[in-house]
Amino acid sequence: MSAPHLETVLRGAGGEHVISHDRPFTLIGERINPTGRRIFQEQLRAGDLSAIERDVKAQVDGGADVLDVNMGVPLTDEADLLAKAITLVQQLTDKPICIDSSVVEALEAGLSVYQGRALVNSITAEDERMEQILPLVKKYDAAIIALPNDADEIPMEAPKRIELTRKIFQVATTEYGIAAADIVIDPLAMPIGADQSVANTFFECVAAIKEEFGANMTCGASNTSFGMPGRHELGAAFLPMAMTAGLTSAIMDTRTPQIVEAVKAADLLLGHDEWGMAWIGAHRAKQAAVAT
Amino acid sequence: MSAPHLETVLRGAGGEHVISHDRPFTLIGERINPTGRRIFQEQLRAGDLSAIERDVKAQVDGGADVLDVNMGVPLTDEADLLAKAITLVQQLTDKPICIDSSVVEALEAGLSVYQGRALVNSITAEDERMEQILPLVKKYDAAIIALPNDADEIPMEAPKRIELTRKIFQVATTEYGIAAADIVIDPLAMPIGADQSVANTFFECVAAIKEEFGANMTCGASNTSFGMPGRHELGAAFLPMAMTAGLTSAIMDTRTPQIVEAVKAADLLLGHDEWGMAWIGAHRAKQAAVAT
Repeated sequence: MSAPHLETVLRGAGGEHVISHDRPFTLIGERINPTGRRIFQEQLRAGDLSAIERDVKAQVDGGADVLDVNMGVPLTDEADLLAKAITLVQQLTDKPICIDSSVVEALEAGLSVYQGRALVNSITAEDERMEQILPLVKKYDAAIIALPNDADEIPMEAPKRIELTRKIFQVATTEYGIAAADIVIDPLAMPIGADQSVANTFFECVAAIKEEFGANMTCGASNTSFGMPGRHELGAAFLPMAMTAGLTSAIMDTRTPQIVEAVKAADLLLGHDEWGMAWIGAHRAKQAAVAT
Repeated sequence: MSAPHLETVLRGAGGEHVISHDRPFTLIGERINPTGRRIFQEQLRAGDLSAIERDVKAQVDGGADVLDVNMGVPLTDEADLLAKAITLVQQLTDKPICIDSSVVEALEAGLSVYQGRALVNSITAEDERMEQILPLVKKYDAAIIALPNDADEIPMEAPKRIELTRKIFQVATTEYGIAAADIVIDPLAMPIGADQSVANTFFECVAAIKEEFGANMTCGASNTSFGMPGRHELGAAFLPMAMTAGLTSAIMDTRTPQIVEAVKAADLLLGHDEWGMAWIGAHRAKQAAVAT
């Protein structure tokens, strides 16, 4: 028997957003991140956060339901910068935030200033990482993204990832009192160019995790097409396929209309757009934009 | 335990084409059909088949692996016209043909002139239709598309379609000696605009038929988006989703690059494009075409 579907409730400064198998797919806008952006890094190092305003607007305009905020700039006080960035983003938008850092102190600083119910990015199945972060998730009443890998190895076979997912649910719920609904699994989307079996493994994990836990899931949507030509076309096929298996959200740059449209088409086809109202409305808005 | 995957072998004037769960998706080009084309109908009624040449080229250039040929023109001798059209198409291309008619005599006339191993479109689970057509399929060593509906009703629930699929396999293999591998099921893609559950039902049927019979499957790819705006975008999401469930071919107009590309992306993601050679090659060809 399939597990009942879990609902992950997030809140921003304003309303709430629910990630669910029974609602439209959740787009987590990933652009508020200095990785690979040298000018943005320099601005942040100089205390200039003004570029964030443009990025927030672009991601929200593109359709982001949640905003991933990462301030991983070398040679800065990441905790201080992340807290400032989160405060700024919450002045700019009501959308919930996914607080993204590999630094525990930065996550805590971000959580401490956050208004609402955040998503934290991320833990793995490693005991140490869970021990550092899950008490913060509990203390600040947040939800958490968890990757089913341990120490330094990403398991290439689905059964091992499922086993680590079981461990995460077990430890997080019983040892740290986290609700199962607040655990969003990232089943590890890998580059198809390096190994043509990785997407099948990913779909297999997604279907199995939906079946066993009813859990919500996310992934870095662009990882799959890394190193390949036609990345937008690959992304536009990958997400509808993953959604058919049971993926309920993705971390992606929402400035790519082809991929966002593919997700909206898949929402309609999966019965998450009653009467096709969202699809038809978006089509009319597009036509109106072309006409003006 | 899942059923072993069946392989449907088709042959045209030249080489063979195999429909399979373990190979790239099969595109059946559907344009050689006068339905809704008034000028083409008038030409055919006057015995002018010259437009077929352009249609064959366009479908093959677009990526068709098999060509659906339908000559359903009112007030003509469809049997005679279909036989002539098939002979002409086989002079123009080596690709196998899907002989498409609701008229039994036309199917027989088409089969009698066909060089190779054809796909016949189609039977339903109705006894009379099977009784008329399956002996021809056997006599001419063809494969057959079968729709799991009876009399005048299309079942809206998956279990009823699966039950009729069982009947088709049972009757066709035991009473008419057709090999299971030569039966391609069309699990009935319906318009999403009329009922937002139809694609889920379709995916459920596809997954169940793959699991129970290992059978190949096809569908009219454009049915799903009928009456909706953004038909190409919907088609480009629908086919990768259906392929993830187990669809192995579709009858479609291959002149829509967005949908053909989505299928090729899904082939790569499903592990049916080793090293991504087809994907990378198509991308290079596209870039070369833009550059000239």
